Amino acid sequence: MNFGTRLTERVRATGSPTCVGLDPHIDKLPPVLVRETERAALAVAASEFCRGVIEVTADLVPCVKPQIAFFEALGSHGVAALEEVVAAARDAGMLVILDAKRNDIGSTAEAYARATLDDDGPLGADAVTLSPYLGPESLEPFARRAESGKGMFVLVRTSNPGAGVWQRHVAPEVADWIAARNAESGAPFGPWGAVVGATVGDESAALRERMPRTWFLVPGYGAQGAGSDDVRRHADAEGLGALVVSARGVLYPSGGQDGTDWKSQVRARAQAFVEDIGTAIPVVR
Amino acid sequence: MNFGTRLTERVRATGSPTCVGLDPHIDKLPPVLVRETERAALAVAASEFCRGVIEVTADLVPCVKPQIAFFEALGSHGVAALEEVVAAARDAGMLVILDAKRNDIGSTAEAYARATLDDDGPLGADAVTLSPYLGPESLEPFARRAESGKGMFVLVRTSNPGAGVWQRHVAPEVADWIAARNAESGAPFGPWGAVVGATVGDESAALRERMPRTWFLVPGYGAQGAGSDDVRRHADAEGLGALVVSARGVLYPSGGQDGTDWKSQVRARAQAFVEDIGTAIPVVR
Repeated sequence: MNFGTRLTERVRATGSPTCVGLDPHIDKLPPVLVRETERAALAVAASEFCRGVIEVTADLVPCVKPQIAFFEALGSHGVAALEEVVAAARDAGMLVILDAKRNDIGSTAEAYARATLDDDGPLGADAVTLSPYLGPESLEPFARRAESGKGMFVLVRTSNPGAGVWQRHVAPEVADWIAARNAESGAPFGPWGAVVGATVGDESAALRERMPRTWFLVPGYGAQGAGSDDVRRHADAEGLGALVVSARGVLYPSGGQDGTDWKSQVRARAQAFVEDIGTAIPVVR
Repeated sequence: MNFGTRLTERVRATGSPTCVGLDPHIDKLPPVLVRETERAALAVAASEFCRGVIEVTADLVPCVKPQIAFFEALGSHGVAALEEVVAAARDAGMLVILDAKRNDIGSTAEAYARATLDDDGPLGADAVTLSPYLGPESLEPFARRAESGKGMFVLVRTSNPGAGVWQRHVAPEVADWIAARNAESGAPFGPWGAVVGATVGDESAALRERMPRTWFLVPGYGAQGAGSDDVRRHADAEGLGALVVSARGVLYPSGGQDGTDWKSQVRARAQAFVEDIGTAIPVVR
């Protein structure tokens, strides 16, 4: 089954087009988890935290998006923690979108595809975020994984304030390339997704028109300033096509840190996120 | 001392504007190193191979460029191997340019900067390759490491056949941004480098004009089809400004694999590479 269809089914099953970002900022973790400050101990804390988040959100939210940078900052220990977290999410029935913004050329891109997506590789995520800077051919090693149900979210228009400076020249062409690939799949949604920030305003309608059969991964909701009104226009009439991400808003309280009841606090914030998005983007089940 | 100056000094000291790419392709390693096929054993082989390459090239070549994708394909074991390889290269006095083509926004880019460059982080490389797709602001967390002598090579025009499709729209603006940042440094070469493929032909002169104080990292020589004539025009009159990379051409024989004498074979190929580039780009010492 192609990744676009797998994602559609998971969103319909939970009734929620949402994704929890797993960003284990070391200085924001619940203090009860951080016993020592060496990288090895911090990696254990990051793993325990992310697995706890998965445990209390898996029935509410269809996907998680581990941000690989926070794990890599803890070196090989952090990457071992990421391996545990991805396995825990898949065991809990969640789809795992690895936020890696990777790419390279030829055999190097092939190595990244193996590192991130292959089920007999170290992570075996369901999907990965990719940068298009190296050109369409650089995406081909990932395209070969579409047959195994894997998905690729290509950066098109990101949510940061200065994103447009260089992206505006390229985003329409990247969007057309994604749309053409998804059209080949014949499915309502193909294996190629697009990262389109919640903060891009009117541009989202133009991008949706260019990419009708494409799931958008939508960062920028919450901590980055966009609200549920901003994400509504990314979705189609059935409430599909826009997967809204919240990381900090679910993981951490707005001031200070959670105590020993951190899991129930995470769950409460996840419920509020799911309700807010559910009002903005009701999914037809 | 700024990274551009550090690199200039190392190139003058060795007399060679070259860099050996460390791409541990598992199926090309000398068979004598590959005892088992689990990821943990393959990571040990990759580490042993790369450290051997460093041992026999450190007196010839100023820099190594580990390609992080090949290590990540081996999971946390591979990342542990990379940590050993980077430490070995720095101990041998080589500058380490980590080929990661990373980037992200805000605190995530900060986490990547920590993961790749910080001396109290897991790797502590001297420089890292970065993708500009997320805009100029995404490069700022790396810019803050310039004060500690760290360098950043931003993708401008890469060496793959389809690179121009999307890069042609953006490359001149990215080049101007790099040039402006290097001009601020006041040094002959600033901390910002540019990835400019050996295969870009006449475009290299235009890019050199836009970025006069900038070290180019030049992939594409050898296995990707460019020769020493193609790289000559990337350098200035003193033989500076173009750091030519060879990976496969140094690491692996063109047919088959090396035997137990693999280190002396690697050294012989590195000498041939250094001589070829030395004829094309004589460095004024």
